[in-house]
Amino acid sequence: MTAFTQILYDVADGIATITMHRPEKMNAFTNVMMREMCAAFDLVDADDAVRAVIVTGSGDRAFCAGADLTPEGGGDVFASRSEVETLSDERVRDSGGRLTLRIFQCKKPVIGAINGAAVGIGATMQLPMDFRLASDTARFGFVFARRGIVPEAASSWFLPRLVGMQQALEWCMTGRVFNAAEALQGGLVRSIHAPADVMDAARALAREIADNTAPVSIALTRAMLWRLSAAEHPMAAHQIDSRAIYRRSRSGDAKEGISSFLEKRPPVYPDKVSADMPDFFPWWDEPVYK
Amino acid sequence: MTAFTQILYDVADGIATITMHRPEKMNAFTNVMMREMCAAFDLVDADDAVRAVIVTGSGDRAFCAGADLTPEGGGDVFASRSEVETLSDERVRDSGGRLTLRIFQCKKPVIGAINGAAVGIGATMQLPMDFRLASDTARFGFVFARRGIVPEAASSWFLPRLVGMQQALEWCMTGRVFNAAEALQGGLVRSIHAPADVMDAARALAREIADNTAPVSIALTRAMLWRLSAAEHPMAAHQIDSRAIYRRSRSGDAKEGISSFLEKRPPVYPDKVSADMPDFFPWWDEPVYK
Amino acid sequence: MTAFTQILYDVADGIATITMHRPEKMNAFTNVMMREMCAAFDLVDADDAVRAVIVTGSGDRAFCAGADLTPEGGGDVFASRSEVETLSDERVRDSGGRLTLRIFQCKKPVIGAINGAAVGIGATMQLPMDFRLASDTARFGFVFARRGIVPEAASSWFLPRLVGMQQALEWCMTGRVFNAAEALQGGLVRSIHAPADVMDAARALAREIADNTAPVSIALTRAMLWRLSAAEHPMAAHQIDSRAIYRRSRSGDAKEGISSFLEKRPPVYPDKVSADMPDFFPWWDEPVYK
Repeated sequence: MTAFTQILYDVADGIATITMHRPEKMNAFTNVMMREMCAAFDLVDADDAVRAVIVTGSGDRAFCAGADLTPEGGGDVFASRSEVETLSDERVRDSGGRLTLRIFQCKKPVIGAINGAAVGIGATMQLPMDFRLASDTARFGFVFARRGIVPEAASSWFLPRLVGMQQALEWCMTGRVFNAAEALQGGLVRSIHAPADVMDAARALAREIADNTAPVSIALTRAMLWRLSAAEHPMAAHQIDSRAIYRRSRSGDAKEGISSFLEKRPPVYPDKVSADMPDFFPWWDEPVYK
Repeated sequence: MTAFTQILYDVADGIATITMHRPEKMNAFTNVMMREMCAAFDLVDADDAVRAVIVTGSGDRAFCAGADLTPEGGGDVFASRSEVETLSDERVRDSGGRLTLRIFQCKKPVIGAINGAAVGIGATMQLPMDFRLASDTARFGFVFARRGIVPEAASSWFLPRLVGMQQALEWCMTGRVFNAAEALQGGLVRSIHAPADVMDAARALAREIADNTAPVSIALTRAMLWRLSAAEHPMAAHQIDSRAIYRRSRSGDAKEGISSFLEKRPPVYPDKVSADMPDFFPWWDEPVYK
Repeated sequence: MTAFTQILYDVADGIATITMHRPEKMNAFTNVMMREMCAAFDLVDADDAVRAVIVTGSGDRAFCAGADLTPEGGGDVFASRSEVETLSDERVRDSGGRLTLRIFQCKKPVIGAINGAAVGIGATMQLPMDFRLASDTARFGFVFARRGIVPEAASSWFLPRLVGMQQALEWCMTGRVFNAAEALQGGLVRSIHAPADVMDAARALAREIADNTAPVSIALTRAMLWRLSAAEHPMAAHQIDSRAIYRRSRSGDAKEGISSFLEKRPPVYPDKVSADMPDFFPWWDEPVYK
């Protein structure tokens, strides 16, 4: 087990759980936490035993109450960056965006179990996750304009494609804190649960995926939907999914998928994400920060 | 009438109906059916008497239950492709994507009348249609990850822009089969109807378009919304719609549109899709598969 | 006060109101009105005292009933364009698109108070606004295909990203006029109000933004959400928001945002849109019409 100091990392029953763990600080976000969460996602991707990952917060008050701006919290997230020559310098890179782009690249389904207050980076870090399940006590806030800053963590890309432009603009322009019911109504969260049930609901969704689907298929599906939906023409998708169908239909997974279906038994897929992704994956060059 | 073997093609009252017709096989999809459907869409586009097209399935059990993987069904869709040198080879092209890209290019409104089970390609072929009307007995499944393969037919491009990213991911990652109510709630289908009413509802929508609008205007509208909405800046739309408004406002159709409106009578538009599309149409180069 | 002839322009309590003012013509749109509205948006952007802008129609019948096609209305919008050599000529430019692209570039939140009939350009001019609040007597119509023309004002770009593709296609392909309840259900309008309340509701939303947020943050937020959400990869957003967070977190606004929050008092942000936008703004080259 990697020694983490501000998160907990646990794997059980094929599900990794990343818990932001500064309950006395409402799990406020620091650069340390950012690096530990990115490292945890590296563990998730490297471990074939992990079929899905749940992200949640420690305690019953907060998912993540935002960036920790106090010195004792590990230092001011902003002030810790020394002044730089040019704005393209790596040191200018927003720490929230480092995390959300890492989540964006994850090869496993990512489920947010939003157990309490989720404000600032606590709200925007959820956006590259595949699913958001919320406690009915959760609260959300894209409060940036109320703090004199701006929506970060690439949320200007993620939020409108999750909830539509009008809703995204309202939450970001008013900066208001809103409850779980509004988050559900607006399409941000998938479902609302009693506080005691939100982790079980997240695990049930993770199990539904893990028990029925092929890991390599899911890794490809995740990359395809997030990336190809943003192309200008569906031909981009046709070119990739043709190759993927061609290769995957000749795989042991496809044989097992059909056999288990016909035999009405749980599937046991042979292919592994660590070794059996098709050779054209990744089909893109990941953009570099500049 | 072209001699089709796995579909029915009918034109009545200005509406073409393409019926997948292998009821004993739950209208399972084959390469033959793909080619016949593409040929039927060619008929639709070439026939000025056709103002809209309805796609449905034969019988009361299935719209299309997916790819027919049995030899007697016309051969394994996948196995029929011989091994190829490079993955860009035309023979690798997914047959589902060939159909959905053909529907994407259609110049007439396309209405899916989803009369029963719609699984795999039976679900993804609906996505480039303009409207999906479902029987309350319909069921849907983007089951690919449960079969060891991936979402095909360019569905990774189409589905998120129809239903949003969170819903698209849930259906594709769980691979679960879901009912018409969930399809309506999630935004996949436009409306639900009693089984006996779904074709009438589809025809009513087709008639509403056909009775009131100019054919050339609809062909332009279809291409503009699907294509220009994916541009990076609204200037792309402004450049095309400026030309379109300029040309169309000088057309006989515009004169008839205003006259019939002022005289409160049904319009009789003179322009034909076969002959009177503006000379800048198409304004794009259709991408080629590579 | 600039002398406007077809609109009213008023600033009160930090909110500009642009009122289309041809009540005897149901506020029908003309080239004069287009130029006056664009000029009013220039005033909005140049005036630091303006924190938000409301667009509405004069009288209680219409928001804007569409293009004024009568000679007395200032001339046929279409016929006023002389024939041109090439279709890229500036004279071909659609007047509706000139307005919507100007609204797209506005640095302040734009709120539509839809007080009555909104048809043709009266419907499409709303789309680049951030919020649409409607009287329960409002009616909407993307009627272009019923007049032999096509959706204009870059609506093929805007409408699908506001309401999804299936809904956008239905409204544009049928050309039907629909009521406020359908507009709300379909996601076009944010909320419905009694006719006497719609302006108050619009002002309340404007005040919620103005009373709590930093003007420069809002100008950046508006540009970021509308523009970066259309990029092909979230890295585009990460590159801009990293620079914006870096600069803004060192601003007087950020200090005031945190101080006022901790002191539980209304903020007084020092930075002005006229002088204090970060030097990387705009980060894009606005496309030119061609």
